[in-house]
Amino acid sequence: MRTGDQSADLAIAEVRLTPILIADPPLLNTQGVHQPYTPRLIIEVVTADGTTGVGETYGDTRYLDLAAPLAKALPGHAVSDLNGLFTLAERVCGDPAEVSDSVDVGGLRGVQTADKLRLSVISGFEVACLDALGKTLGLPVHALLGGKVRDAVDYSAYLFYRFAAHPDGQGEADDWGAALDPEGVVAQARRFADTYGFGSFKLKGGVFPPDQEIAAVRALAAAFPGKPLRLDPNGAWSVETSLRVARELGDVLEYLEDPASTTERMAQVAAGTSVPLATNMCVTTFAEIPEAFTRGAVQVVLSDHHYWGGLRHTQQLAAICRTYGVGLSMHSNTHLGISLAAMTHVAATVPNLDYACDSHYPWQTEDVITERHAFTEGRLTVSDAPGLGVELDRDALKALHRRWLDDDGTMRDRDDAAAMRKADPQWRTPSVPRW
Amino acid sequence: MRTGDQSADLAIAEVRLTPILIADPPLLNTQGVHQPYTPRLIIEVVTADGTTGVGETYGDTRYLDLAAPLAKALPGHAVSDLNGLFTLAERVCGDPAEVSDSVDVGGLRGVQTADKLRLSVISGFEVACLDALGKTLGLPVHALLGGKVRDAVDYSAYLFYRFAAHPDGQGEADDWGAALDPEGVVAQARRFADTYGFGSFKLKGGVFPPDQEIAAVRALAAAFPGKPLRLDPNGAWSVETSLRVARELGDVLEYLEDPASTTERMAQVAAGTSVPLATNMCVTTFAEIPEAFTRGAVQVVLSDHHYWGGLRHTQQLAAICRTYGVGLSMHSNTHLGISLAAMTHVAATVPNLDYACDSHYPWQTEDVITERHAFTEGRLTVSDAPGLGVELDRDALKALHRRWLDDDGTMRDRDDAAAMRKADPQWRTPSVPRW
Repeated sequence: MRTGDQSADLAIAEVRLTPILIADPPLLNTQGVHQPYTPRLIIEVVTADGTTGVGETYGDTRYLDLAAPLAKALPGHAVSDLNGLFTLAERVCGDPAEVSDSVDVGGLRGVQTADKLRLSVISGFEVACLDALGKTLGLPVHALLGGKVRDAVDYSAYLFYRFAAHPDGQGEADDWGAALDPEGVVAQARRFADTYGFGSFKLKGGVFPPDQEIAAVRALAAAFPGKPLRLDPNGAWSVETSLRVARELGDVLEYLEDPASTTERMAQVAAGTSVPLATNMCVTTFAEIPEAFTRGAVQVVLSDHHYWGGLRHTQQLAAICRTYGVGLSMHSNTHLGISLAAMTHVAATVPNLDYACDSHYPWQTEDVITERHAFTEGRLTVSDAPGLGVELDRDALKALHRRWLDDDGTMRDRDDAAAMRKADPQWRTPSVPRW
Repeated sequence: MRTGDQSADLAIAEVRLTPILIADPPLLNTQGVHQPYTPRLIIEVVTADGTTGVGETYGDTRYLDLAAPLAKALPGHAVSDLNGLFTLAERVCGDPAEVSDSVDVGGLRGVQTADKLRLSVISGFEVACLDALGKTLGLPVHALLGGKVRDAVDYSAYLFYRFAAHPDGQGEADDWGAALDPEGVVAQARRFADTYGFGSFKLKGGVFPPDQEIAAVRALAAAFPGKPLRLDPNGAWSVETSLRVARELGDVLEYLEDPASTTERMAQVAAGTSVPLATNMCVTTFAEIPEAFTRGAVQVVLSDHHYWGGLRHTQQLAAICRTYGVGLSMHSNTHLGISLAAMTHVAATVPNLDYACDSHYPWQTEDVITERHAFTEGRLTVSDAPGLGVELDRDALKALHRRWLDDDGTMRDRDDAAAMRKADPQWRTPSVPRW
């Protein structure tokens, strides 16, 4: 039993920000293709007692610009003062000026606002603080969030149309080969199922005309009968197209994710189908919830602790979904093992996590933790070790930071359209709806 | 820095339940009058390392019936496993059978359901667990809830029409005298302001015909110009009466609390006035939120950690209110210093606490803590001591428990109508709307 005030131990003495570039395969989406390398930001907070907590978030320039003043202002604050992160960020980060297209990734992350960028940055700091707090107190992060309600968290296979290699031959090679038709998608799904045991499958769509993607989902349904399937064209379709796809795939889809962009179009689609609509585009902030829920535009929200401002905000989102009878699943952008640990901890504490979570993690061959997470039967066991339960691999971090330092600037801001122009010089971000 | 797993230290070794009867003055409401003594339940959880955490909740028989099996099932669980309390309670408490009128207190606590009774019981255990966890870790409860965003919490004076003494002369005497007209209410308010520094005033209404209560609020406005005023008839009025009172007092009311009962009537009132409507009756559970918010029936929710299932649920309620643009204040039933400490900790962590909190505390002359809370300028300083920052007074607890043991059963379930029949044998719980 500790009887004293812990605040001295818990004070932040130092904050380290390390932008890195990580290898990313040539995965396709409606905006283009993933670049050979994509930026992430690794955040370390070191407490007065020498405990280091780690966090991870987006690493594009605009996020770094917001993270720097927050890192500078943080020493002296307690790692337990998570609510204070929001107050502090509001004070020191200022409002980022106009939001650039390069950070917007053509809308893949939903509408970008100054608030939302700031929340994504805060999220990385919150996770680092929780990791440090957990290590100091000898408690796993899930215990700091009220305790796990499950011992393992289900994840879904995240299937992508993809090239065999990056258009200009850059980046790290892999042995997955191309997946540009139903056979390629099924082969990829088979490997995911065999390697990781995933029992549900999501296909990133919006890449080919809808009939081709319908054929791919049908092929998946035939190959994996009875398994939950999801299709996500990132808002590329019109209301009419969305309704047609819902009709044609309604018998095999667990949900249809962001078939159309904007709450207005999603509400129209929802009104015309009984297939649940999921979103990580039209509801990505608390401010977007009331209209979307009142109109019944979405039946499943894909939470993302980066977007929503951290693990505790994710729990609040879950409470709102529970209250309004809206389902909850979990979204993923390209991320490493720190974020996957954070996702798993918070997912373990949410009673109403109704669906397996998304994760890009199997596509990431590089990491900044010493021991990579291993999916077994499509699940990750929730760690009971203090903090997140991961250890930073400083050599790996250094090497990935070196790559960021050496980059001429072309990879430091994710731009899927620019990457696509390496294959097709005429490529422009498609207007919405594309089909 | 603690590097080991804390779970052994945090395991609950013993749970003690102590029902007590506490003195309560003859405060009037639309259902009747407070009994001379009212039941509360004090909960102690003792961890394996010998730390004791304390919690407090309603003590009526039906709550005791739910608390007993939960207390029995709890040893072995960690005090950090707050989410697990809900799972466990669902398993072991069963569904209380029909809800008795005596617990319902004529609707003063809103609609009673099995779920809601269970949540009120869980709340006491959650607070006890948080107190023990904080003491073990050396952290105040607010730090376990994400950290305080304010150093002090504002409270409001809670004015009551009252008799000078209990009808049959039972109970503990006090020197407040009667307050049955505007002059009496103003005198009471003056003493509250002078003694505690409260800067806002709430009058419990629904006792006299509306014109008399309008006159009392007008007298308060004249005596305390510019100070926020509230009037709460506990749903006693019709829609028409509610709208008339809103018209007549709109210039001085901060909000009108539960003028009419049911969401339907509140929505009708809200549609006809710009005076914000507050509630602790039509929205007392998460399930009641969507309809009330969609219809604009309430503009301020009075949270109550007992009703809502604890401090973390209160934070979730706050997040929902923030998301939907609904104001947040805090409700109070008769309670002691443990609950006031819990209220203050959670209130300190909620950014959108828009109004001073209610508290019956000044009316309670007895307590089970060694050092009573002291309001200064209407506020309580948020404790930074480990846990809740209160210490159990075992002698006081023993004496109040003895009173409960010695009671012949008449006080063990709060029944304001029965107490009123001591003054007026013909008294029946009024039908709604009363006026």
